[in-house]
Amino acid sequence: MTIRVLGIDPGLTRCGIGVVDVEPDRRVTLVYYGVVRSEPSAPIEERLLTVNAGLEALIDEHEPHAMAVERVFAQHNLRTVMGTAQVSGLALRAAAARSIPVGLRTPSEVKAAITGYGAADKKQVQAMVARVLRLAEPPQPADAADALALAICHAWRGDAPDARATGASSSLTPAQRAWLAAERGTKR
Amino acid sequence: MTIRVLGIDPGLTRCGIGVVDVEPDRRVTLVYYGVVRSEPSAPIEERLLTVNAGLEALIDEHEPHAMAVERVFAQHNLRTVMGTAQVSGLALRAAAARSIPVGLRTPSEVKAAITGYGAADKKQVQAMVARVLRLAEPPQPADAADALALAICHAWRGDAPDARATGASSSLTPAQRAWLAAERGTKR
Repeated sequence: MTIRVLGIDPGLTRCGIGVVDVEPDRRVTLVYYGVVRSEPSAPIEERLLTVNAGLEALIDEHEPHAMAVERVFAQHNLRTVMGTAQVSGLALRAAAARSIPVGLRTPSEVKAAITGYGAADKKQVQAMVARVLRLAEPPQPADAADALALAICHAWRGDAPDARATGASSSLTPAQRAWLAAERGTKR
Repeated sequence: MTIRVLGIDPGLTRCGIGVVDVEPDRRVTLVYYGVVRSEPSAPIEERLLTVNAGLEALIDEHEPHAMAVERVFAQHNLRTVMGTAQVSGLALRAAAARSIPVGLRTPSEVKAAITGYGAADKKQVQAMVARVLRLAEPPQPADAADALALAICHAWRGDAPDARATGASSSLTPAQRAWLAAERGTKR
């Protein structure tokens, strides 16, 4: 059976979306990629409304069997982390409202799944995404390529619980481990 | 004209909601307070769906003219900041979807509006909320009292743009100013 997976790289200015079909033999085919944008000068509530509408339209258009959302870490991108967290909340809610199973994936997990190397750089990931999907060029913009990588990772790793649930956080940086521990409410 | 304001103290385990009616002479009357809860052991996407449904139901029941949401700062409550940010995103989107004007208010702004003192402690704020609303006791739990304080602050301060828009951040702590600057993308 072909499984369709929709990946979301949450963001307020550019939210990356990637959709792939995965065959039982792990072969992956591109279905869609793009970004949902909102105007940085617009009020935050209008931006969230715009991004949510775009996300929901793409979910309803592509009817994925599963969704993956990139896990947001507060240590990264302090400048944009609030908007990113807010969009991730919208994406998770949109999945739950449609009873579409959704998982969170860390950037390191995605890199490891795509390149075999958790500390791979962006260019290596994008090149591998193009190769896996048999595209002549890496998809642009980078947010869309990231969303495709997320969808491919999620499809290949199947319904394996994410690092948070299993405690299998070996692919995390020390800062990410600290953040996950804080999220879990454990003493550090 | 009586203005109805709904305040939201965003949270994933307990999201505080307070609704007040405000007369032109600034007299405030309690309409509703409570919390929307989600089960900490449930998956994050289910929790967001639950909180969003509760929020939307209360907004539709009380039909406020304006809404206020507490601004989330990443420095505070590292343990819970992601869930708080995600719920604030849902609240802002829900307001925009209904064309209800919504504003963000910092905790210091709220304290200053209610007690005249931006560094007031929680007990002082809750006591003043009870007094302003002519209640025998401060509302419980604290998240609901905080949401009422937010609604009263927003009503009394009217449609004044928030600190972010005006740059009038004198009631902020140094950490909050740093965070706002980072949110705005200005160099520090």
